Parts: sequence; structure tokens; C-alpha cells
Amino acid sequence: MRVLGVDPGLTRCGLGVVEGVPGRAPALVAVDVVRTRADAGIGTRLLELDLALEAFIATHRPEAVAVERVFSQHNVRTVMGTAQASAVAILVAARHGLPVALHTPSEMKAAVTGSGRADKAQVTAMVTRILRLAAPPTPADAADALGLAICHMWRGGATARIEAALAATGGRG
Amino acid sequence: MRVLGVDPGLTRCGLGVVEGVPGRAPALVAVDVVRTRADAGIGTRLLELDLALEAFIATHRPEAVAVERVFSQHNVRTVMGTAQASAVAILVAARHGLPVALHTPSEMKAAVTGSGRADKAQVTAMVTRILRLAAPPTPADAADALGLAICHMWRGGATARIEAALAATGGRG
Repeated sequence: MRVLGVDPGLTRCGLGVVEGVPGRAPALVAVDVVRTRADAGIGTRLLELDLALEAFIATHRPEAVAVERVFSQHNVRTVMGTAQASAVAILVAARHGLPVALHTPSEMKAAVTGSGRADKAQVTAMVTRILRLAAPPTPADAADALGLAICHMWRGGATARIEAALAATGGRG
Repeated sequence: MRVLGVDPGLTRCGLGVVEGVPGRAPALVAVDVVRTRADAGIGTRLLELDLALEAFIATHRPEAVAVERVFSQHNVRTVMGTAQASAVAILVAARHGLPVALHTPSEMKAAVTGSGRADKAQVTAMVTRILRLAAPPTPADAADALGLAICHMWRGGATARIEAALAATGGRG
């Protein structure tokens, strides 16, 4: 299973693809950070992000896309840009017929570090360890994108295993 | 000048095109409301909106797009859908090389009713009068979209006239 994780943002949008099977350590396929200029106008920025995501998906062919769920509790000004960037990521995934899942930052942190309250350094350290990378991915947006992809693979895997176990024991339907 | 106004939303997205010259009453070109199903999944909804906007722009060929500016002060759950729908509208406009302007609800209401605090009934009544329509556009999202297009035309016109006057009198530069 190959999963694209997206840490949405207009200034920096983290993209990370991992491949693996549930329950085993996934491998890094690709990681990148898309940047758009603040003075470019919102239309141009969203279009640049669309084109970059299109190219990344065409090159790395993920089977599923995991996008960080945006909350509006955060800073009013930045949350709008994050929501807009996440909309473009979801739209591009849908255009390719790829299933899209949204995971909260806490879900991602809990999946890779064991704690939903882990800080950025912890997430980066664990992503580096899980993917057996020679050096930590930078900037943090790149590590977060990889964390989302790992989170999605593991959560999906766990869900699939629970469903298989329930089916085997007749626990459900 | 032909302007497309967009009142963004996932459940209902108002689209209205008006044509005219600054300082004169604009005419209705087209009005529509795009609806997407709440149970369709966010990716499908954004993709349907993208396709509907593409078709609307291809048919009515606006020269500029005015989108309602989204604030995150509103209801947390609905504002995300509105922000995502507005991102798609801005993205489609950019894809067509069309200039995009964002106007607040207050700016739109002030432009068409004279009061930034006008209610929906007042906006609908004035849009109906300004465009000399036989019947009020429904639902309110349709009237709001037309109001945004009118607002953009008139504000753009006023700005152009002020700049022309300043240039003529040497008031600036």
C-alpha cells in the first residue's frame, strides 16, 4: 500500500509518500515541500499547489491520500490558508479517484510517537526512526506529511485487522 | 464588463453573472445554485463544485470573479466547508487566468442596499430591483452571488473613476 500524506499550507505544504504493509515498518518513497510566495495572490498560490500536487501524484502514484484535518480554533488568518490548501489537496486526490482520509494532528502524533501531545522534535525523531532515514526530514512540514502517511497506513491496517478478526470469530455480521 | 459572483458553500454554492459598465445598471446574464450531497464525501463534493464552476465559466465567459470573503468567526463546522468551496472557486478562476477579488458580506450589502447590516430580504429586494428582474432570485445564495457580482462591478468602477479623476487633475503621480 502506498500512501501520500499532505500537511496543508500555502507558504509551505508538506508532501510525503510511504509504502508498506500494515503492521510492518513502511519505507520512504518520496518527500517534498511545496512553497508558494505570499505576494503571488491567492489564486496563483492555489493553482501552483494544484499543479505541484498533480505532478507529485503522477510521479509517485499513491493509492490513498491522508490530509491533516484543519480546525478553525487556530489563528484566524493562517487557518484560512490552511483550509484552502487542504481543499486543493482533497480536490486533486478526488480528481485521481483516490480515497481521502483526514487525520487530526493528535491522531498522527499518537500513531508515530505514542502521545497525541508530542512536539515537533519528537514527531521528526520518530518519523526518521520508523522510516530508517539517514537524516531527519526537514522542514517540520515534511516530517508531518510523512507522519500522516504512516498514521494512515497503520490506522487503516489496524482497522482491517480488527475487521478480519471480527469476521473470523463471527463477532460482527 | 462581465463579472461572476460566487457565494461559496458545499451544500449550496450561489453563482451569478452580471454584465454592465460602471455607473450604469447592470444586466443579469445567468444565475444558478450548485448543490452537493452531504453524504457524498468531501472529495466528491469539491470535485463536483469544480466541474460545475468550469461549465458555468465556459458557458458564460466572465472577465472577473468576485468571491465572498470567508471569516472564521462564524460557526466552526460550516466555515470549513465554506472555506473549501471558496478555495475551489478561486482555483478555477485562476486556472482560467481570471482576476479574483474577495468582498466581505458587509461590502456586498453596503454596495447593493446602502447598509452593511442589511438582512437577506433587503439584499434580495435590491438585487431584484437593480437587475430589473420579474421575480426575486431564489434561494438567498443566488441573490448573494448576484449581489457580489454587482458589488464588484460598482466598486471596480468607482476605483477606476477615482483613479481617472486623480490622473486628470494630477492629484497623484
